[in-house]
Amino acid sequence: MIRELAIVGVGLLGGSVAKAARAGGLARRIIGVGRDPARLRPAVDDGTLDAAVTDLAAGVRDADVIVLSAPVMAIEGLLERVWRAAPGGALVTDVGSTKGHIVRAAERLAATRPLAFVGSHPLAGSEQAGYRVARADLFRGATVVVTPTEKTELAALKKTTELWEALGARVTSLDPETHDRTVAAISHLPHLIACALVDGAARVEPGALELAARGFRDTTRIAAGDPDMWTDIFLANRDALTEGIEAFREALADLQRVIDAGRAEPLKADLARIKAIRERLR
Amino acid sequence: MIRELAIVGVGLLGGSVAKAARAGGLARRIIGVGRDPARLRPAVDDGTLDAAVTDLAAGVRDADVIVLSAPVMAIEGLLERVWRAAPGGALVTDVGSTKGHIVRAAERLAATRPLAFVGSHPLAGSEQAGYRVARADLFRGATVVVTPTEKTELAALKKTTELWEALGARVTSLDPETHDRTVAAISHLPHLIACALVDGAARVEPGALELAARGFRDTTRIAAGDPDMWTDIFLANRDALTEGIEAFREALADLQRVIDAGRAEPLKADLARIKAIRERLR
Repeated sequence: MIRELAIVGVGLLGGSVAKAARAGGLARRIIGVGRDPARLRPAVDDGTLDAAVTDLAAGVRDADVIVLSAPVMAIEGLLERVWRAAPGGALVTDVGSTKGHIVRAAERLAATRPLAFVGSHPLAGSEQAGYRVARADLFRGATVVVTPTEKTELAALKKTTELWEALGARVTSLDPETHDRTVAAISHLPHLIACALVDGAARVEPGALELAARGFRDTTRIAAGDPDMWTDIFLANRDALTEGIEAFREALADLQRVIDAGRAEPLKADLARIKAIRERLR
Repeated sequence: MIRELAIVGVGLLGGSVAKAARAGGLARRIIGVGRDPARLRPAVDDGTLDAAVTDLAAGVRDADVIVLSAPVMAIEGLLERVWRAAPGGALVTDVGSTKGHIVRAAERLAATRPLAFVGSHPLAGSEQAGYRVARADLFRGATVVVTPTEKTELAALKKTTELWEALGARVTSLDPETHDRTVAAISHLPHLIACALVDGAARVEPGALELAARGFRDTTRIAAGDPDMWTDIFLANRDALTEGIEAFREALADLQRVIDAGRAEPLKADLARIKAIRERLR
């Protein structure tokens, strides 16, 4: 049971944490912190938040659990301010979709003042954003990756895991660097590739897109994602993304080499191998 | 009204042409040609075909319209045999998903014996294959690209267009090379890219695929396509595919350069530009 839960950033993810915590009776008191009082009001009005404040220090001062759910590039900056204002026994976690730079920032801060931090990344969300799409069941059945390091206290890791499980999620643990390579490969790179596919098609044959059938629409739907959010993510995960691009480029060059050779059997073997990998997904 | 319609290859596409022609009463007689009598039998039994033969020459001898619906790499070979056996006034078309090599082969043959050929490519189909998934309404609302050249007789183009329209399709016309660049950009390249994404992800972080969320599954679903069919298509459209890969590589390299520079504004501008292109799709 959490005495006071502070949610910094009450959008889709933060709002869903608050709603799920409220629905499950996990916290005696839930405080929302945001920059715009008008955007916090609906969450107070519907009973999800007990209070909403725009002053971060005031919002986290009495919290025992603090969830940072701002855009990923903003979380580092929030950490510094939380570190100054949070009470000594508080647990801090976040929902950022890249983890290396956030976890390292928290560890630098912990060297100056001990405070428990565990990075989290819920693999949940949607194309839409904002509190109005937040749902109490957003994390039900979703995977949340927690990213402890050798410096993480076991008690903090346990508490973070229990929090997400109480919200309905399955929790898996990866070190921050493996996490970042993984999400680059399965999320950030596919997004970037979809953008390059749309742009490349428009370059090679401007009329091509008019004939695009369902397959192309499916593959490139993510290229219509929010440019602000994806700019943030691509820059936050730049290193792992670059690694992912290299592996992808090599895989593509290998396939191209086999196609250029013009022989059916080796190409068929490659496609069958890749089909088998893909089919393990489901 | 077609007197005798010969369908060479009675699978998903050929079978659907036959069923739609039967349903619409477009042909007095419909003959199916295939290599395996057992696989032709269901189409005779259900009344779609009036007769089924394994001898190509016998099957097309009295036809006034001949539709070649074999795998794309087999169509060139069929053309030569059809050219020897078809009656002088016949119209020949096909359903191959690449057109340059097929149209060129037909034009070489036409230099030896005049016979009307117009390339067609119905943008319809599914992950599944075979007569058992053929449907009379497969072409309803679908786009069929016809690919005339300056050597194509207008009467043959008109008749081919009317055939597809009678089957329910919207017909659009492209020269064979523009067609091949277009399908490379919107179909073949996205497929190849999906394969490289799966392979690249498995290389960079073998455990990554276990965490793959819905977005990755959607983007890479096509990587589980039939290796035989895609080997055929990639090799048949090798030149246009290579052009498409180059344009894609440049588009990806441009995005990577902007990400490497680490500045948000130019990246946001690129992503917004691409989002606008993608959104024009629907």
